[in-house]
Amino acid sequence: MSGENGLRIAIVGLGTVGGGVIRLLETNRALIARRAGRPIRITAISARDKTKDRGVDLSPYEWVDDMSSLAVREDIDAVVELIGGADGPALTLARQCLAAGKPFVTANKAMIAHHGLDLAEGAEKAGVALKYEAAVAGGIPVIKGLREGAAANEISRVYGILNGTCNYILTTMEREGHAFSDVLKDAQDLGYAEADPTFDIDGIDAAHKLSILASLAFGTALDFDKVNVTGIRHVIAADIAEAAALGFRIRLVGMAETGPDGLFQQVHPMLVPANHPLAHVDGSLNAVVAEGNFVGRLFFQGAGAGDGPTASAVVADLIDVARGEYGPAFAMPVESLDRLPKADAGKRTGRVYLRFKVKDRPGVLAEIAAATRDAGVSIESMIQRGETSNGGVLVAIVTHTGELACVNDTLERLSGSDSLLDQPMVMHILD
Amino acid sequence: MSGENGLRIAIVGLGTVGGGVIRLLETNRALIARRAGRPIRITAISARDKTKDRGVDLSPYEWVDDMSSLAVREDIDAVVELIGGADGPALTLARQCLAAGKPFVTANKAMIAHHGLDLAEGAEKAGVALKYEAAVAGGIPVIKGLREGAAANEISRVYGILNGTCNYILTTMEREGHAFSDVLKDAQDLGYAEADPTFDIDGIDAAHKLSILASLAFGTALDFDKVNVTGIRHVIAADIAEAAALGFRIRLVGMAETGPDGLFQQVHPMLVPANHPLAHVDGSLNAVVAEGNFVGRLFFQGAGAGDGPTASAVVADLIDVARGEYGPAFAMPVESLDRLPKADAGKRTGRVYLRFKVKDRPGVLAEIAAATRDAGVSIESMIQRGETSNGGVLVAIVTHTGELACVNDTLERLSGSDSLLDQPMVMHILD
Repeated sequence: MSGENGLRIAIVGLGTVGGGVIRLLETNRALIARRAGRPIRITAISARDKTKDRGVDLSPYEWVDDMSSLAVREDIDAVVELIGGADGPALTLARQCLAAGKPFVTANKAMIAHHGLDLAEGAEKAGVALKYEAAVAGGIPVIKGLREGAAANEISRVYGILNGTCNYILTTMEREGHAFSDVLKDAQDLGYAEADPTFDIDGIDAAHKLSILASLAFGTALDFDKVNVTGIRHVIAADIAEAAALGFRIRLVGMAETGPDGLFQQVHPMLVPANHPLAHVDGSLNAVVAEGNFVGRLFFQGAGAGDGPTASAVVADLIDVARGEYGPAFAMPVESLDRLPKADAGKRTGRVYLRFKVKDRPGVLAEIAAATRDAGVSIESMIQRGETSNGGVLVAIVTHTGELACVNDTLERLSGSDSLLDQPMVMHILD
Repeated sequence: MSGENGLRIAIVGLGTVGGGVIRLLETNRALIARRAGRPIRITAISARDKTKDRGVDLSPYEWVDDMSSLAVREDIDAVVELIGGADGPALTLARQCLAAGKPFVTANKAMIAHHGLDLAEGAEKAGVALKYEAAVAGGIPVIKGLREGAAANEISRVYGILNGTCNYILTTMEREGHAFSDVLKDAQDLGYAEADPTFDIDGIDAAHKLSILASLAFGTALDFDKVNVTGIRHVIAADIAEAAALGFRIRLVGMAETGPDGLFQQVHPMLVPANHPLAHVDGSLNAVVAEGNFVGRLFFQGAGAGDGPTASAVVADLIDVARGEYGPAFAMPVESLDRLPKADAGKRTGRVYLRFKVKDRPGVLAEIAAATRDAGVSIESMIQRGETSNGGVLVAIVTHTGELACVNDTLERLSGSDSLLDQPMVMHILD
């Protein structure tokens, strides 16, 4: 299968992560060979633009313009895809490689979230590895942790902080009291957020990762379309201050659970109790919690992005491939994964934080209180505080545990009201 | 290799963990079969006393009196050892099984710490699995995390909270301000500490686990005898209060590092900065940190003991065996593990907390200050506070970063002094 028994690989896509993988394979060459049982050698590389300076010396490696040719080359034992994007060239390459029986390693969360089942079937048919540790939570070995480490457990829920950009923004707002838009701009200037940050701050990136974790945790067919997604765009500094006063911190949490009515998957800013491990996850770190019926609560934390951590995960996959230690991509054959309906979010119970920007005039509090009463929502605490920039006041409510449908009913009852200056903010509380 | 393609196992040792493994295999039977690719079936069980009530119905399983017979039975595909003890019947069984080519799964940290290399060689010779995920940090998949998840990294240091009993005692002292002996007694009454707690509170159990982690992290030959061990017996409530005033919490930390002068392994109560993840590890939880040159800091936390979490780790190993996914026990063949000398602890640098109980009389502070000066120790802060029960006063010092040999020199200079009422307490600071 290989020259001098080494694993000969091709790397496609030479952005930050691609450069990181090359640097890692060069820097740690000797120890990787010891741990993998044989050397891992870069045979060929490919990317869109050959002339771009990537800060890595690429001259030792064969440049290939036609990446499709890699799928069928006999002197390549595995292909590493670091192009990104759910469809397009990454997906074409993945299909070509698996069809040709070539082991495939990727960091591409969007592609796995959208086409993972399909690709896993292809890998099964060909009897080769499809590995994607780097697709979720960067360097944290959480795919392995769920797929193998916690494999003996029935997992009741899996959740975590899956997007470093959002966590950087939220924890910076928390520390400095600044507005979302200011912190986002700083984050962009510092390189912690993309020029177009939509995928991150609107929760789509976290949703990709959550759908992958859910499949592994529950043995269910990956189903990205059933994730409820809300980003952090509408979290204001006052929310963070109110939450802190109540003993919570705000984090963008991806949460998946199964129940009698199906699979629940949600990415949503949540109020996390200050003594919960997720409350201590600062800056651009990621963290994942899995709760199993025998192991209890497992908590994994580390760098969720960046070239070094992502490369660490990619090469861990390559070491597994070199060792011959891999099985079905989603821990079991695709045909034996459960297909669950989407659970009705309204039927779930929990506590909720509600925040309204309202006109500063008599009767507004009574109006909100009446709406919650009529919708059957029981209030644990209600704070009216200060002035907002547009002359209104803020009303923050924490509900008692109840059906979430009642909260939606409350909002509907208030939706026609001219007392409201803005869309209300709804955040679930992690209990 | 197996009846109806199932993995047929024998379980030896039916204490709390043995019972937990049986309950887990029964409760999660179907999902384990899906994840392992085939059923895992208990064929035979064995323990010292057949008559004891273990709260589990053992009647479905064949009872075997002569455990040695299991090593050579053709209808058994793997043996699970849950007897415990570094030597004696556990070791005999391990050797018999591996010599007979029988995959072997154990939760026995003492045996692995003392005989792991030997046993790993036996497993290599026979080409079978030797797995021990449950030996370190209970249900946390940290063996897999280091062996596979972080395999691409050069690990600079690995450290953590490896003994739940000690962490329960220290965090209870922290919360309630009680004395060590009182909290230990409560812990014994509640079942959090053994009747003979020596192995736990003197750090030996943590040292067993640390030596295993070090081998995996650094690719070095496991070397338990080179661990410096100090337990928590001499930590007093005032130490915890002083540490808190300085922004630290006290944890029993197992820490391993490699450097130009060799392998450093130490289990020692340490001052952990309040914003470090280990400072938030409460009660009987365990946690492990690994720092890699590409992945950065990885943090794993979970239940470090108990029948459920330990069983979770044992069965994760069995699932790997059923899948055929395992390699050398210490990630690489024993002969390729590095043999490093023991690093000189005195040559290391760091900050240190020193606490003296001294007579309440003029000149004592000057005497201590002179000793530190003459030993070349630079003082960052010095607090003299309150009265102790035996009429003396406490002096607590935090040094600047310096060579630890100088701290030892300070203590030697003071060792003859009749101003001291007790052995000084020395704790390193985690920076």
